[in-house]
Amino acid sequence: MTGSDIITAAVLVIGDEILSGRTKDRNIGTIAEHLTDIGIALKEVRIVGDVAADIIAGVNALRARYTYVFTTGGIGPTHDDITADSIGAAFGVTVDVDPRAVALMQPVYAARGIELTSARLRMARIPAGADLVVNSVSAAPGFKIGNVIVMAGVPDIMKAMLLAATQQLRTGPIVNAVSIVVRKPEGDIADLFAAHQRLYPDVVMGSYPSFVEGDYRTELVLRSPHPIRLEEARAGLERALVERAFL
Amino acid sequence: MTGSDIITAAVLVIGDEILSGRTKDRNIGTIAEHLTDIGIALKEVRIVGDVAADIIAGVNALRARYTYVFTTGGIGPTHDDITADSIGAAFGVTVDVDPRAVALMQPVYAARGIELTSARLRMARIPAGADLVVNSVSAAPGFKIGNVIVMAGVPDIMKAMLLAATQQLRTGPIVNAVSIVVRKPEGDIADLFAAHQRLYPDVVMGSYPSFVEGDYRTELVLRSPHPIRLEEARAGLERALVERAFL
Repeated sequence: MTGSDIITAAVLVIGDEILSGRTKDRNIGTIAEHLTDIGIALKEVRIVGDVAADIIAGVNALRARYTYVFTTGGIGPTHDDITADSIGAAFGVTVDVDPRAVALMQPVYAARGIELTSARLRMARIPAGADLVVNSVSAAPGFKIGNVIVMAGVPDIMKAMLLAATQQLRTGPIVNAVSIVVRKPEGDIADLFAAHQRLYPDVVMGSYPSFVEGDYRTELVLRSPHPIRLEEARAGLERALVERAFL
Repeated sequence: MTGSDIITAAVLVIGDEILSGRTKDRNIGTIAEHLTDIGIALKEVRIVGDVAADIIAGVNALRARYTYVFTTGGIGPTHDDITADSIGAAFGVTVDVDPRAVALMQPVYAARGIELTSARLRMARIPAGADLVVNSVSAAPGFKIGNVIVMAGVPDIMKAMLLAATQQLRTGPIVNAVSIVVRKPEGDIADLFAAHQRLYPDVVMGSYPSFVEGDYRTELVLRSPHPIRLEEARAGLERALVERAFL
């Protein structure tokens, strides 16, 4: 569904290993790009450790504020996987082995010759009232409860769950972005760019500098859900840059 | 300084481009690793857009809760760089061009033949009462106000500022990590690992699965500030894994 209302989202990354720096997060960028592509505006990300109080506080703060919250991590079979229980606590519901989840896991595990031990059945523990999110990679599902979508932390599994989950979500206008690259330090074009932003207050404009192989490079990015207005702003900026010999 | 008290930190990443997915953050992992190495425990990360109210709310929530807060992004010369003003607002102080910052920038800019325009002087705007954080890459400094360290978003500049800033910080015990890699899915060793965690409740244990080239791989990570205790827990885990033929 695509509408004209702005749909917002937050991401809550759960995992000690990200905060210790041992594992570098690869999910935030994937989710951010995907949400932008489908017309959901990602507004905030939080990373917390494997600490129930922090997960509960994070998910409750974010679900009150945004249309959707996506969590990653902490739904595996080991004792440090406490996301399902923490989400249950945040919603004040029980968390038990869910026959629907077992039914998804059983045939896949049987086919792979993996026993469905009590440890593995931890992955079938789902908060009461949640819908399952299918995991086409390794069977053990994520879930959606209220406006919170709970996904695995392993990037390939997270991607599969993200695709499965977002088919059911409301989406808003898609915000398109265009950019112009100027081979100058951003300080050179800052005044011109600020003046252009004042001309188009409804188009969000950002400047992203880098210094590549001894050359200054500034990427000017313009964003708007209105393609015609965006092209107008882009063409106007290009003209202004050419006039001042920046392009 | 190294003490026995736990020193905590949070990171606040500021930037629309990260939330849109166009730019992938590379600073969180760098800061996380660095803080772990020097004995500061990173407890939370937040990413917000270039929105004053969100930056102010984020920095105020985090500085009340943790020993230090590190921010990245939004201190360049363009109109979308609003971090210095937002931090000033969070602390209730004025933000003006700081002669100390100008003195750092002037000789470097002169040597590179770059004019110190009014746009560039925006980068010398520092909240009242802040100390400067030296930028050995491109001169325009970061700053430290109260327990908040404000750094650039460009990774090379951020790294230089991080090293400069952390020399002045209190640090706590260094938490060492050791790991054992098991070539089994984590569900196989979950019960053994949980039992081992119960034997060593003071050693933090986490399990990180992956599936590489058709092989299951589970990394068991143990963390403690006490090297002898950590080695005891590691050796005990290794014995238990060997006994059950997991290694």
